[in-house]
Amino acid sequence: LAGERLLGELIDAFSTLPGIGQKSAERLAYHVLKMPRSEAMQITEAIRRVKDDLRRCTLCQNISEEEICTICSDESRERNRICVIEQPKDLRAIEESGSYQGLYHVLGASFSPLEERGSEQMSLDKLVERSRSDEVEEVILATNPDFEGDGTALLVTESLAETGVHVTRLARGLPTGGQIEYMNRSILKDAVEGRSSFKTAQDEE
Amino acid sequence: LAGERLLGELIDAFSTLPGIGQKSAERLAYHVLKMPRSEAMQITEAIRRVKDDLRRCTLCQNISEEEICTICSDESRERNRICVIEQPKDLRAIEESGSYQGLYHVLGASFSPLEERGSEQMSLDKLVERSRSDEVEEVILATNPDFEGDGTALLVTESLAETGVHVTRLARGLPTGGQIEYMNRSILKDAVEGRSSFKTAQDEE
Repeated sequence: LAGERLLGELIDAFSTLPGIGQKSAERLAYHVLKMPRSEAMQITEAIRRVKDDLRRCTLCQNISEEEICTICSDESRERNRICVIEQPKDLRAIEESGSYQGLYHVLGASFSPLEERGSEQMSLDKLVERSRSDEVEEVILATNPDFEGDGTALLVTESLAETGVHVTRLARGLPTGGQIEYMNRSILKDAVEGRSSFKTAQDEE
Repeated sequence: LAGERLLGELIDAFSTLPGIGQKSAERLAYHVLKMPRSEAMQITEAIRRVKDDLRRCTLCQNISEEEICTICSDESRERNRICVIEQPKDLRAIEESGSYQGLYHVLGASFSPLEERGSEQMSLDKLVERSRSDEVEEVILATNPDFEGDGTALLVTESLAETGVHVTRLARGLPTGGQIEYMNRSILKDAVEGRSSFKTAQDEE
Protein backbone atom coordinates (compact mmCIF):
# COMPACT_ATOMS: atom_id res chain seq x y z
CA LEU A 1 0.00 0.00 0.00
CA ALA A 2 1.13 3.53 -0.70
CA GLY A 3 3.49 4.80 1.97
CA GLU A 4 2.51 1.96 4.17
CA ARG A 5 5.82 0.15 4.32
CA LEU A 6 7.00 2.40 7.15
CA LEU A 7 3.61 2.28 8.78
CA GLY A 8 3.64 -1.50 8.38
CA GLU A 9 7.00 -1.66 10.13
CA LEU A 10 5.59 0.34 13.02
CA ILE A 11 2.53 -1.90 13.18
CA ASP A 12 4.84 -4.94 13.30
CA ALA A 13 6.95 -3.34 16.04
CA PHE A 14 3.90 -2.53 18.16
CA SER A 15 2.45 -6.00 17.76
CA THR A 16 5.53 -7.57 19.38
CA LEU A 17 4.42 -5.93 22.64
CA PRO A 18 2.39 -7.96 25.14
CA GLY A 19 -1.36 -7.52 24.89
CA ILE A 20 -1.14 -5.64 21.59
CA GLY A 21 -2.84 -7.56 18.78
CA GLN A 22 -2.87 -6.70 15.08
CA LYS A 23 -5.87 -4.37 15.35
CA SER A 24 -4.52 -2.47 18.36
CA ALA A 25 -1.13 -2.17 16.67
CA GLU A 26 -2.79 -0.63 13.61
CA ARG A 27 -4.74 1.82 15.74
CA LEU A 28 -1.56 2.82 17.60
CA ALA A 29 0.41 3.27 14.37
CA TYR A 30 -2.24 5.53 12.82
CA HIS A 31 -2.33 7.44 16.09
CA VAL A 32 1.44 7.98 15.90
CA LEU A 33 0.99 9.14 12.30
CA LYS A 34 -1.43 11.83 13.45
CA MET A 35 0.15 12.92 16.72
CA PRO A 36 2.53 15.90 16.91
CA ARG A 37 6.15 14.93 16.29
CA SER A 38 7.20 16.22 19.71
CA GLU A 39 4.83 13.84 21.49
CA ALA A 40 6.04 10.90 19.44
CA MET A 41 9.62 11.82 20.30
CA GLN A 42 8.71 11.85 24.00
CA ILE A 43 7.75 8.20 23.68
CA THR A 44 10.92 7.20 21.85
CA GLU A 45 13.05 9.14 24.31
CA ALA A 46 11.33 7.52 27.30
CA ILE A 47 12.00 4.07 25.81
CA ARG A 48 15.64 4.91 25.10
CA ARG A 49 16.28 6.23 28.60
CA VAL A 50 14.75 3.15 30.23
CA LYS A 51 17.16 1.04 28.16
CA ASP A 52 20.23 3.24 28.59
CA ASP A 53 19.98 5.08 31.88
CA LEU A 54 18.73 2.41 34.25
CA ARG A 55 20.99 -0.04 36.07
CA ARG A 56 20.85 -2.25 39.13
CA CYS A 57 21.29 -0.94 42.64
CA THR A 58 24.55 -2.54 43.82
CA LEU A 59 22.94 -3.40 47.17
CA CYS A 60 19.41 -4.66 46.47
CA GLN A 61 19.63 -5.25 42.69
CA ASN A 62 16.49 -3.21 42.08
CA ILE A 63 16.40 -0.93 39.05
CA SER A 64 18.02 2.39 39.80
CA GLU A 65 19.37 5.50 38.18
CA GLU A 66 22.18 5.74 40.74
CA GLU A 67 24.65 3.19 42.10
CA ILE A 68 22.51 2.90 45.26
CA CYS A 69 18.74 3.09 44.77
CA THR A 70 16.47 5.55 46.54
CA ILE A 71 15.06 2.89 48.86
CA CYS A 72 18.46 1.59 50.01
CA SER A 73 19.69 5.13 50.59
CA ASP A 74 16.53 6.24 52.41
CA GLU A 75 17.57 6.54 56.08
CA SER A 76 13.95 6.58 57.27
CA ARG A 77 13.33 2.95 56.22
CA GLU A 78 13.56 0.05 58.66
CA ARG A 79 16.99 -1.39 57.99
CA ASN A 80 16.49 -4.59 60.00
CA ARG A 81 14.16 -6.23 57.47
CA ILE A 82 14.79 -7.35 53.90
CA CYS A 83 11.89 -8.38 51.69
CA VAL A 84 12.98 -10.78 48.92
CA ILE A 85 11.08 -10.40 45.65
CA GLU A 86 11.40 -11.93 42.20
CA GLN A 87 11.19 -8.81 40.05
CA PRO A 88 10.99 -5.00 40.23
CA LYS A 89 7.26 -5.15 39.39
CA ASP A 90 6.68 -6.96 42.70
CA LEU A 91 8.50 -4.22 44.58
CA ARG A 92 6.22 -1.66 43.03
CA ALA A 93 3.12 -3.61 44.09
CA ILE A 94 4.32 -3.96 47.70
CA GLU A 95 5.33 -0.31 47.91
CA GLU A 96 1.95 0.76 46.61
CA SER A 97 0.24 -1.32 49.28
CA GLY A 98 1.94 0.90 51.89
CA SER A 99 2.27 -2.12 54.18
CA TYR A 100 6.05 -2.40 54.32
CA GLN A 101 8.76 0.01 55.45
CA GLY A 102 11.88 -2.16 55.28
CA LEU A 103 14.44 -2.82 52.56
CA TYR A 104 14.18 -5.09 49.53
CA HIS A 105 16.24 -7.57 47.60
CA VAL A 106 15.42 -8.33 43.98
CA LEU A 107 16.35 -11.83 42.89
CA GLY A 108 15.75 -11.95 39.16
CA ALA A 109 15.68 -8.35 38.04
CA SER A 110 17.06 -9.40 34.70
CA PHE A 111 16.77 -6.57 32.25
CA SER A 112 18.70 -6.11 29.12
CA PRO A 113 21.98 -4.40 30.07
CA LEU A 114 22.65 -7.29 32.47
CA GLU A 115 20.86 -10.08 30.77
CA GLU A 116 23.64 -12.61 31.29
CA ARG A 117 22.49 -15.89 32.82
CA GLY A 118 23.36 -16.55 36.42
CA SER A 119 22.41 -13.07 37.53
CA GLU A 120 19.97 -14.72 39.94
CA GLN A 121 22.88 -16.64 41.54
CA MET A 122 24.84 -13.40 41.75
CA SER A 123 21.91 -11.70 43.44
CA LEU A 124 21.47 -14.60 45.87
CA ASP A 125 25.13 -14.41 46.94
CA LYS A 126 24.61 -10.70 47.54
CA LEU A 127 21.56 -11.41 49.69
CA VAL A 128 23.51 -13.88 51.85
CA GLU A 129 26.19 -11.25 52.28
CA ARG A 130 23.64 -8.58 53.27
CA SER A 131 21.90 -10.96 55.70
CA ARG A 132 25.16 -11.53 57.57
CA SER A 133 25.10 -7.91 58.72
CA ASP A 134 24.19 -7.51 62.42
CA GLU A 135 21.66 -4.90 61.39
CA VAL A 136 19.46 -7.42 59.57
CA GLU A 137 17.09 -9.42 61.75
CA GLU A 138 14.48 -10.73 59.35
CA VAL A 139 14.33 -11.82 55.72
CA ILE A 140 10.76 -11.92 54.38
CA LEU A 141 10.18 -14.17 51.38
CA ALA A 142 7.75 -12.53 48.98
CA THR A 143 8.10 -14.80 45.97
CA ASN A 144 4.96 -15.61 44.01
CA PRO A 145 2.58 -18.12 45.65
CA ASP A 146 3.04 -20.67 42.87
CA PHE A 147 5.19 -23.71 42.08
CA GLU A 148 8.16 -21.71 40.83
CA GLY A 149 7.95 -19.10 43.56
CA ASP A 150 7.79 -21.75 46.26
CA GLY A 151 10.85 -23.44 44.76
CA THR A 152 12.70 -20.14 44.77
CA ALA A 153 11.68 -19.54 48.40
CA LEU A 154 13.08 -22.92 49.36
CA LEU A 155 16.35 -22.19 47.60
CA VAL A 156 16.71 -18.82 49.29
CA THR A 157 15.96 -20.32 52.71
CA GLU A 158 18.67 -22.97 52.23
CA SER A 159 21.19 -20.35 51.19
CA LEU A 160 20.38 -18.26 54.26
CA ALA A 161 20.60 -21.17 56.76
CA GLU A 162 24.25 -20.47 57.58
CA THR A 163 23.56 -16.81 58.37
CA GLY A 164 21.17 -17.51 61.24
CA VAL A 165 18.82 -14.75 60.12
CA HIS A 166 15.10 -15.17 60.85
CA VAL A 167 13.36 -16.16 57.60
CA THR A 168 9.60 -15.57 57.22
CA ARG A 169 7.25 -15.72 54.27
CA LEU A 170 4.08 -13.83 53.33
CA ALA A 171 0.79 -15.25 54.64
CA ARG A 172 -1.31 -17.59 52.49
CA GLY A 173 -5.07 -17.68 52.67
CA LEU A 174 -8.25 -16.26 51.22
CA PRO A 175 -7.73 -13.12 49.15
CA THR A 176 -9.82 -10.32 50.65
CA GLY A 177 -12.71 -9.51 48.33
CA GLY A 178 -12.84 -13.03 46.85
CA GLN A 179 -15.66 -15.51 47.22
CA ILE A 180 -15.14 -18.90 48.84
CA GLU A 181 -17.20 -20.68 46.20
CA TYR A 182 -14.66 -19.69 43.55
CA MET A 183 -11.50 -20.57 45.51
CA ASN A 184 -9.50 -23.60 44.42
CA ARG A 185 -8.35 -26.49 46.59
CA SER A 186 -4.87 -25.07 47.31
CA ILE A 187 -6.22 -21.74 48.50
CA LEU A 188 -8.77 -23.40 50.77
CA LYS A 189 -6.11 -25.79 52.12
CA ASP A 190 -3.85 -22.83 52.94
CA ALA A 191 -6.75 -20.98 54.52
CA VAL A 192 -7.76 -23.92 56.72
CA GLU A 193 -4.23 -24.81 57.78
CA GLY A 194 -3.33 -21.21 58.49
CA ARG A 195 -6.48 -20.32 60.40
CA SER A 196 -6.09 -18.12 63.46
CA SER A 197 -8.25 -17.48 66.49
CA PHE A 198 -10.94 -14.94 65.79
CA LYS A 199 -10.83 -12.11 68.31
CA THR A 200 -13.63 -9.61 68.75
CA ALA A 201 -12.96 -6.15 70.10
CA GLN A 202 -14.42 -7.39 73.43
CA ASP A 203 -11.88 -10.25 73.64
CA GLU A 204 -9.03 -7.83 73.33
CA GLU A 205 -10.05 -5.66 76.28
CA LEU B 1 10.15 4.58 43.90
CA ALA B 2 13.72 3.52 43.34
CA GLY B 3 14.78 4.00 39.74
CA GLU B 4 11.19 4.36 38.78
CA ARG B 5 11.22 7.95 37.67
CA LEU B 6 12.36 6.90 34.20
CA LEU B 7 10.01 3.95 34.22
CA GLY B 8 7.24 6.27 35.38
CA GLU B 9 7.94 8.59 32.46
CA LEU B 10 7.65 5.66 30.08
CA ILE B 11 4.40 4.56 31.71
CA ASP B 12 3.06 8.10 31.32
CA ALA B 13 4.15 8.18 27.67
CA PHE B 14 2.47 4.86 26.91
CA SER B 15 -0.74 5.84 28.64
CA THR B 16 -1.21 8.80 26.27
CA LEU B 17 -1.82 6.24 23.50
CA PRO B 18 -5.40 5.29 22.61
CA GLY B 19 -6.70 2.16 24.30
CA ILE B 20 -3.73 1.97 26.68
CA GLY B 21 -4.84 2.39 30.30
CA GLN B 22 -2.65 2.71 33.37
CA LYS B 23 -2.31 -1.06 33.89
CA SER B 24 -1.46 -1.80 30.24
CA ALA B 25 1.04 1.07 30.23
CA GLU B 26 2.77 -0.44 33.28
CA ARG B 27 2.88 -3.87 31.68
CA LEU B 28 4.35 -2.38 28.50
CA ALA B 29 6.97 -0.39 30.40
CA TYR B 30 8.16 -3.41 32.37
CA HIS B 31 8.24 -5.35 29.14
CA VAL B 32 10.49 -2.68 27.60
CA LEU B 33 12.68 -2.89 30.70
CA LYS B 34 13.18 -6.60 30.14
CA MET B 35 13.42 -6.76 26.35
CA PRO B 36 16.76 -6.69 24.52
CA ARG B 37 17.95 -3.18 23.76
CA SER B 38 18.02 -3.87 20.01
CA GLU B 39 14.30 -4.75 19.98
CA ALA B 40 13.43 -1.62 21.91
CA MET B 41 15.44 0.45 19.46
CA GLN B 42 13.50 -1.11 16.56
CA ILE B 43 10.33 0.35 18.06
CA THR B 44 11.78 3.82 18.57
CA GLU B 45 13.24 3.79 15.06
CA ALA B 46 9.93 2.74 13.52
CA ILE B 47 8.17 5.60 15.33
CA ARG B 48 10.83 8.10 14.27
CA ARG B 49 10.67 7.06 10.61
CA VAL B 50 6.88 7.33 10.52
CA LYS B 51 7.22 10.89 11.82
CA ASP B 52 10.21 11.91 9.69
CA ASP B 53 10.10 9.91 6.46
CA LEU B 54 6.42 10.00 5.55
CA ARG B 55 4.81 12.85 3.65
CA ARG B 56 1.72 13.42 1.54
CA CYS B 57 1.45 12.31 -2.04
CA THR B 58 1.27 15.57 -4.01
CA LEU B 59 -1.56 14.14 -6.14
CA CYS B 60 -3.91 12.25 -3.81
CA GLN B 61 -2.69 13.51 -0.40
CA ASN B 62 -2.33 9.96 0.90
CA ILE B 63 0.69 9.14 3.06
CA SER B 64 3.71 8.32 0.96
CA GLU B 65 7.45 7.92 1.11
CA GLU B 66 7.87 9.49 -2.31
CA GLU B 67 6.48 12.64 -3.91
CA ILE B 68 3.92 10.49 -5.76
CA CYS B 69 2.50 7.51 -3.86
CA THR B 70 2.60 3.92 -5.12
CA ILE B 71 -1.10 3.93 -5.99
CA CYS B 72 -0.99 7.14 -8.05
CA SER B 73 2.11 5.91 -9.88
CA ASP B 74 0.70 2.43 -10.50
CA GLU B 75 -0.08 2.34 -14.25
CA SER B 76 -2.27 -0.76 -13.87
CA ARG B 77 -4.92 1.09 -11.85
CA GLU B 78 -8.09 2.49 -13.40
CA ARG B 79 -7.33 6.17 -13.86
CA ASN B 80 -10.87 7.26 -14.69
CA ARG B 81 -12.19 6.88 -11.14
CA ILE B 82 -11.27 8.74 -7.94
CA CYS B 83 -12.51 7.47 -4.59
CA VAL B 84 -12.71 10.27 -1.99
CA ILE B 85 -11.94 9.19 1.59
CA GLU B 86 -11.56 11.01 4.88
CA GLN B 87 -8.32 9.46 6.14
CA PRO B 88 -5.53 7.02 5.14
CA LYS B 89 -7.04 4.34 7.41
CA ASP B 90 -10.11 4.27 5.16
CA LEU B 91 -7.91 3.76 2.10
CA ARG B 92 -6.35 0.75 3.80
CA ALA B 93 -9.77 -0.75 4.52
CA ILE B 94 -11.00 -0.31 0.95
CA GLU B 95 -7.76 -1.67 -0.52
CA GLU B 96 -7.99 -4.73 1.73
CA SER B 97 -11.53 -5.37 0.50
CA GLY B 98 -10.09 -5.84 -2.99
CA SER B 99 -13.22 -4.26 -4.45
CA TYR B 100 -11.72 -1.14 -6.01
CA GLN B 101 -9.05 -0.65 -8.66
CA GLY B 102 -9.18 3.10 -9.21
CA LEU B 103 -7.35 6.05 -7.69
CA TYR B 104 -7.98 7.78 -4.35
CA HIS B 105 -8.16 11.23 -2.88
CA VAL B 106 -7.60 11.74 0.86
CA LEU B 107 -9.44 14.73 2.30
CA GLY B 108 -8.25 15.05 5.86
CA ALA B 109 -5.04 13.12 6.05
CA SER B 110 -3.75 15.52 8.64
CA PHE B 111 -0.61 14.18 10.21
CA SER B 112 1.98 16.09 12.07
CA PRO B 113 4.37 17.53 9.47
CA LEU B 114 1.39 19.22 7.84
CA GLU B 115 -0.89 19.77 10.74
CA GLU B 116 -1.76 23.32 9.85
CA ARG B 117 -5.51 23.98 9.71
CA GLY B 118 -7.12 24.26 6.35
CA SER B 119 -5.32 21.28 4.92
CA GLU B 120 -8.75 19.84 4.13
CA GLN B 121 -9.54 22.91 2.04
CA MET B 122 -6.18 22.53 0.30
CA SER B 123 -6.96 18.92 -0.43
CA LEU B 124 -10.42 19.78 -1.73
CA ASP B 125 -8.98 22.35 -4.15
CA LYS B 126 -6.62 19.66 -5.37
CA LEU B 127 -9.51 17.26 -5.90
CA VAL B 128 -11.39 19.81 -7.99
CA GLU B 129 -8.25 20.31 -10.07
CA ARG B 130 -7.81 16.54 -10.57
CA SER B 131 -11.48 16.10 -11.48
CA ARG B 132 -11.17 18.62 -14.28
CA SER B 133 -8.87 16.24 -16.15
CA ASP B 134 -10.50 14.58 -19.17
CA GLU B 135 -9.25 11.25 -17.86
CA VAL B 136 -11.49 11.34 -14.79
CA GLU B 137 -15.09 10.20 -15.34
CA GLU B 138 -16.32 9.39 -11.84
CA VAL B 139 -15.71 10.61 -8.32
CA ILE B 140 -16.92 8.12 -5.69
CA LEU B 141 -17.71 9.59 -2.27
CA ALA B 142 -16.58 7.16 0.43
CA THR B 143 -16.93 9.35 3.52
CA ASN B 144 -18.24 7.72 6.70
CA PRO B 145 -21.99 7.00 6.73
CA ASP B 146 -22.61 9.39 9.63
CA PHE B 147 -23.62 13.00 10.20
CA GLU B 148 -20.13 14.41 9.69
CA GLY B 149 -19.34 12.19 6.72
CA ASP B 150 -22.60 13.10 5.01
CA GLY B 151 -21.83 16.78 5.55
CA THR B 152 -18.41 16.32 4.02
CA ALA B 153 -19.93 14.46 1.07
CA LEU B 154 -22.29 17.36 0.45
CA LEU B 155 -19.44 19.87 0.57
CA VAL B 156 -17.37 17.83 -1.88
CA THR B 157 -20.31 17.47 -4.27
CA GLU B 158 -20.88 21.22 -4.27
CA SER B 159 -17.23 21.89 -4.98
CA LEU B 160 -17.28 19.45 -7.88
CA ALA B 161 -20.45 20.82 -9.48
CA GLU B 162 -18.55 23.14 -11.83
CA THR B 163 -16.34 20.30 -13.14
CA GLY B 164 -19.23 18.28 -14.55
CA VAL B 165 -17.72 15.03 -13.31
CA HIS B 166 -20.11 12.20 -12.39
CA VAL B 167 -20.34 12.02 -8.58
CA THR B 168 -21.49 8.79 -6.90
CA ARG B 169 -21.49 7.61 -3.32
CA LEU B 170 -21.14 4.19 -1.69
CA ALA B 171 -24.34 2.16 -1.26
CA ARG B 172 -26.27 2.30 2.01
CA GLY B 173 -28.20 -0.66 3.33
CA LEU B 174 -28.04 -3.73 5.52
CA PRO B 175 -24.47 -4.73 6.42
CA THR B 176 -23.91 -8.31 5.26
CA GLY B 177 -23.69 -10.63 8.25
CA GLY B 178 -25.90 -8.42 10.42
CA GLN B 179 -29.35 -9.23 11.75
CA ILE B 180 -32.38 -7.15 10.88
CA GLU B 181 -33.68 -7.25 14.47
CA TYR B 182 -30.59 -5.31 15.61
CA MET B 183 -30.58 -2.68 12.85
CA ASN B 184 -31.55 0.87 13.74
CA ARG B 185 -34.11 3.05 12.07
CA SER B 186 -31.65 4.84 9.75
CA ILE B 187 -30.20 1.60 8.44
CA LEU B 188 -33.64 0.13 7.76
CA LYS B 189 -34.80 3.36 6.11
CA ASP B 190 -31.74 3.27 3.80
CA ALA B 191 -32.34 -0.40 3.07
CA VAL B 192 -36.00 0.08 2.19
CA GLU B 193 -35.46 3.21 0.09
CA GLY B 194 -32.52 1.68 -1.74
CA ARG B 195 -34.13 -1.70 -2.46
CA SER B 196 -33.47 -3.22 -5.85
CA SER B 197 -35.24 -5.86 -7.91
CA PHE B 198 -34.27 -9.33 -6.84
CA LYS B 199 -33.07 -11.37 -9.77
CA THR B 200 -32.68 -15.14 -9.66
CA ALA B 201 -30.22 -16.93 -11.93
CA GLN B 202 -33.24 -17.93 -14.05
CA ASP B 203 -34.31 -14.32 -14.57
CA GLU B 204 -30.92 -13.46 -15.95
CA GLU B 205 -30.96 -16.11 -18.67
